[in-house]
Amino acid sequence: MSIGFIGLGIMGGGMAANLLRKGFSPVVHNRTRAKADPLLAAGAVWADTPAALGRQVTTVITMLAHPEAVRAMALGAEGFLDHLPSGALWIDCSTVNPSFSRAMAAEAQRRGLRYLEAPVTGSKAAAAGGTLRFLVGGAPEDLDAARPLLEAMGRQIVHVGEVGMGSAAKIVNNLVLGQMMAAFAEGVVLGEALGLDRATLLDLLVEGPGGAPLLKLKRDRLAHDDFADPDFPLRWMHKDLHLAAQTAYEVGVALPVGHAAGEAYALAIRYGLGDDDFAAIYRFLARQIPHP
Amino acid sequence: MSIGFIGLGIMGGGMAANLLRKGFSPVVHNRTRAKADPLLAAGAVWADTPAALGRQVTTVITMLAHPEAVRAMALGAEGFLDHLPSGALWIDCSTVNPSFSRAMAAEAQRRGLRYLEAPVTGSKAAAAGGTLRFLVGGAPEDLDAARPLLEAMGRQIVHVGEVGMGSAAKIVNNLVLGQMMAAFAEGVVLGEALGLDRATLLDLLVEGPGGAPLLKLKRDRLAHDDFADPDFPLRWMHKDLHLAAQTAYEVGVALPVGHAAGEAYALAIRYGLGDDDFAAIYRFLARQIPHP
Amino acid sequence: MSIGFIGLGIMGGGMAANLLRKGFSPVVHNRTRAKADPLLAAGAVWADTPAALGRQVTTVITMLAHPEAVRAMALGAEGFLDHLPSGALWIDCSTVNPSFSRAMAAEAQRRGLRYLEAPVTGSKAAAAGGTLRFLVGGAPEDLDAARPLLEAMGRQIVHVGEVGMGSAAKIVNNLVLGQMMAAFAEGVVLGEALGLDRATLLDLLVEGPGGAPLLKLKRDRLAHDDFADPDFPLRWMHKDLHLAAQTAYEVGVALPVGHAAGEAYALAIRYGLGDDDFAAIYRFLARQIPHP
Amino acid sequence: MSIGFIGLGIMGGGMAANLLRKGFSPVVHNRTRAKADPLLAAGAVWADTPAALGRQVTTVITMLAHPEAVRAMALGAEGFLDHLPSGALWIDCSTVNPSFSRAMAAEAQRRGLRYLEAPVTGSKAAAAGGTLRFLVGGAPEDLDAARPLLEAMGRQIVHVGEVGMGSAAKIVNNLVLGQMMAAFAEGVVLGEALGLDRATLLDLLVEGPGGAPLLKLKRDRLAHDDFADPDFPLRWMHKDLHLAAQTAYEVGVALPVGHAAGEAYALAIRYGLGDDDFAAIYRFLARQIPHP
Repeated sequence: MSIGFIGLGIMGGGMAANLLRKGFSPVVHNRTRAKADPLLAAGAVWADTPAALGRQVTTVITMLAHPEAVRAMALGAEGFLDHLPSGALWIDCSTVNPSFSRAMAAEAQRRGLRYLEAPVTGSKAAAAGGTLRFLVGGAPEDLDAARPLLEAMGRQIVHVGEVGMGSAAKIVNNLVLGQMMAAFAEGVVLGEALGLDRATLLDLLVEGPGGAPLLKLKRDRLAHDDFADPDFPLRWMHKDLHLAAQTAYEVGVALPVGHAAGEAYALAIRYGLGDDDFAAIYRFLARQIPHP
Repeated sequence: MSIGFIGLGIMGGGMAANLLRKGFSPVVHNRTRAKADPLLAAGAVWADTPAALGRQVTTVITMLAHPEAVRAMALGAEGFLDHLPSGALWIDCSTVNPSFSRAMAAEAQRRGLRYLEAPVTGSKAAAAGGTLRFLVGGAPEDLDAARPLLEAMGRQIVHVGEVGMGSAAKIVNNLVLGQMMAAFAEGVVLGEALGLDRATLLDLLVEGPGGAPLLKLKRDRLAHDDFADPDFPLRWMHKDLHLAAQTAYEVGVALPVGHAAGEAYALAIRYGLGDDDFAAIYRFLARQIPHP
Repeated sequence: MSIGFIGLGIMGGGMAANLLRKGFSPVVHNRTRAKADPLLAAGAVWADTPAALGRQVTTVITMLAHPEAVRAMALGAEGFLDHLPSGALWIDCSTVNPSFSRAMAAEAQRRGLRYLEAPVTGSKAAAAGGTLRFLVGGAPEDLDAARPLLEAMGRQIVHVGEVGMGSAAKIVNNLVLGQMMAAFAEGVVLGEALGLDRATLLDLLVEGPGGAPLLKLKRDRLAHDDFADPDFPLRWMHKDLHLAAQTAYEVGVALPVGHAAGEAYALAIRYGLGDDDFAAIYRFLARQIPHP
Repeated sequence: MSIGFIGLGIMGGGMAANLLRKGFSPVVHNRTRAKADPLLAAGAVWADTPAALGRQVTTVITMLAHPEAVRAMALGAEGFLDHLPSGALWIDCSTVNPSFSRAMAAEAQRRGLRYLEAPVTGSKAAAAGGTLRFLVGGAPEDLDAARPLLEAMGRQIVHVGEVGMGSAAKIVNNLVLGQMMAAFAEGVVLGEALGLDRATLLDLLVEGPGGAPLLKLKRDRLAHDDFADPDFPLRWMHKDLHLAAQTAYEVGVALPVGHAAGEAYALAIRYGLGDDDFAAIYRFLARQIPHP
């Protein structure tokens, strides 16, 4: 089995490194080549285009920022999908909306290819450490084929159902996390404005009934106002809340609170925080700018 | 030390029962007498009015639904505050806004009384089981005086700071929990509409990075669509989000997501769910009513 | 010039009738044939499919409910776009998002066809009375060719700019109107709850600084709780707010209030009001359902 | 009839000037004396405190920024209410919530005084030009007594009902206007981001079905990005939306869109726009700040 890996960003870089570490020799491609350097030094092979990559492998893994990027890599001018050999397997680990995932599965099937969606939970550290959780949608036999690869990159594989169900689970997960982070941020901003000590407040919240692992993970970022070197950039969370909104529209569901959270992130991006960790929603809410 | 206890609802009933169990003999009062019956059977003494209660005790504990109820019991026509002996201690366990709590402290002080705010986290089960957490604001010596009583009713006492800080911590806590519950509900409604099995989805969320104790507590309510016999009624959560909004206004903080959650609960109340557990925000969002 | 007209709903029916009245003899098509009957009685010609219509005309006008419907009629299995003669003109009067409109223009151009977007403001009565306003995007010479048709259906033609600008103006217009209607509804619900007489209140608002033509138009619906026989169905307004949200995401704009309005309409649809006039957002907010 | 006037800000200054112009000689008071200078030059008499003013007049008009300011002037340490002669008339033109207005009426009545609420619509220019509209709540005979004064300051007097109804109408009015302005701003921001010319867009909106007088009034501010010299400061609109929210809570009404608008204004205040005209909500949404 020859493996290709496309998308070497915050998440993909760590995932591909784990493949190498476990003995696989992936052919890799990324929009900007520089990000591939550490992997090439460790034995990965570079492909100049997705198409060139497609011609060399029987399994391709994609880990890209949003559906448009997936579409471009798979179906664009130099896309890989028309160049994979018949029967090849495409595993998309990107976070996309379910209807998009089903559309990609149809594109694959039309070309005699197999398709598995395997979006992940866990952020940068989990990608680097090989402890991701995969939420898989697709046929059991395709998952069986993919399992050694997924096990090399993560520690839990949940087969949620057919294609679309993995994306659904992922979208729902991030919808909840995006709102939770905003809730945590609003709570801390309000508490501080009322005179509570920030560290005391963070401890109270983290140890109380709302103390999700997410809050524990972000506690120190809020304590030290440190949102650089993001685990998960704020603009990605905004993108995922947008995918959730898009998906909710398609199925006739109202998300009054999720939309409010989404627009808070949208404003935070306009106010310069898009490339920070999504916990920077705290900074957006806490900040004050004097009247000119 | 003779003890009075006012407010024998979902929370207060359990708390007063624990006082009895630990050997205290409280004089009790409630707006409707019937709720006092089990306590009277167990040895508590009834007072017809807050004023009558005030004349019999040196410490009074209040556990009421909202600031207006506290004001009425303390300062209304038959309020207890003018009838307590000099130096008596008032411990208010109700959830109120910090500025209200400070106003009550001033009313007490003006009469030569001592005041402690001690709102709780933990809901009905914790009140009944004596495992509440108290978020205390007030003077250390007043907390020392109150400690035996609080220990009889809870298992953790956090001295947050001066009067106002306990309320602040409590308001912040519920602001976060109210949003988290709404986030959880929206996630489940969206996931089900996308075809995910509800139980699978609940497990994924509860075991994932958003898996706060609150979610674990509410999981089965969502699994079984069971919001009766509330741990914490939806209309109380709405009230607490309103107190948070009021407080945020006073200190110049914006809560764009908290307000959206608050209005979702407000709508849920209009649509008949106010007396259910606040997890019934799920039902509000999941429900569909056909066109007439 | 032979004319085709596709989409004979609330708006399209009136528009096609005006074409007939002004001496044009359109070939017409609609998903359900029954809606064409009055037009056929007045001299219009029926086409069984969009493709069949396309083969008979040199200009085609579409007035459909949403982008997906436009795509299906133009590019679906029996779509008209592959059947129009070279150089034919497609005038799309549907409300769609700008990026979709540009995509349709590209599809037309690829086939040697001309494309004009001409969404309208004004609702059912304006469509029936021939008093619509067209917000046109496209080439001036294509507008010149379309002008006699547009003048037969409306009384104002605004050439906003190139393709995409007409849709942009329309989306913005409905974003504003959707919010205004919600604002009006909230104001009336609050005023009534405070004891104001509804008619007095409506007059105050309609005659005050917020008294837009929209409010005057909807005044009597609110006065009489009458949302049947919609000028513009609530689910269409929800759709347009969704298009605005989608478009805002594409260009990096935050719409915190527009999203809140959109979700209020989304909830109203779930609670059975989607087929009523969009002023029924008042009913959604005013209604109370007793606790079971 | 000797007249007192308290509160000489953006609105009150113009109103008191009109009283002078029509031949009245008011005794005036303001928190900061400098604002009274032009009036004193024109013949008004200064009072050092509200109490001093109260002792000199039989009618007092108040025009203050919020309920707390009214309470302080009327009932504070040097408040006027205890110093008015029996049977004197207090006309409060401030925007306050209905429950507050009823509380003030009760305070007046308890002292043998008469009370009328007469909040206004129309902003700075209407105050200066004497073209305000008064929304009056109170007894008909009190309105009869007040009428000459109100006619000196405005051109329309609407007797809405008993005390509370005038405030209710005013709160509702501003709830609607606050949302409308936000809707207008969001529409313009989105349209510009889509490439529409701002002036064209403003004209389209102002001349379309949403073209309320408010939009016409604010058109040039948006055209020229000019929010200085406010007709109505943004922080007052935020305050009024807060009063609406508070009032809605008291009567069990949900305002999902109004709350979203309120929080947009709250954020705009944090980002330095509170002292600009409330049309500066456009600037808040249009602005972009680069990533540090």
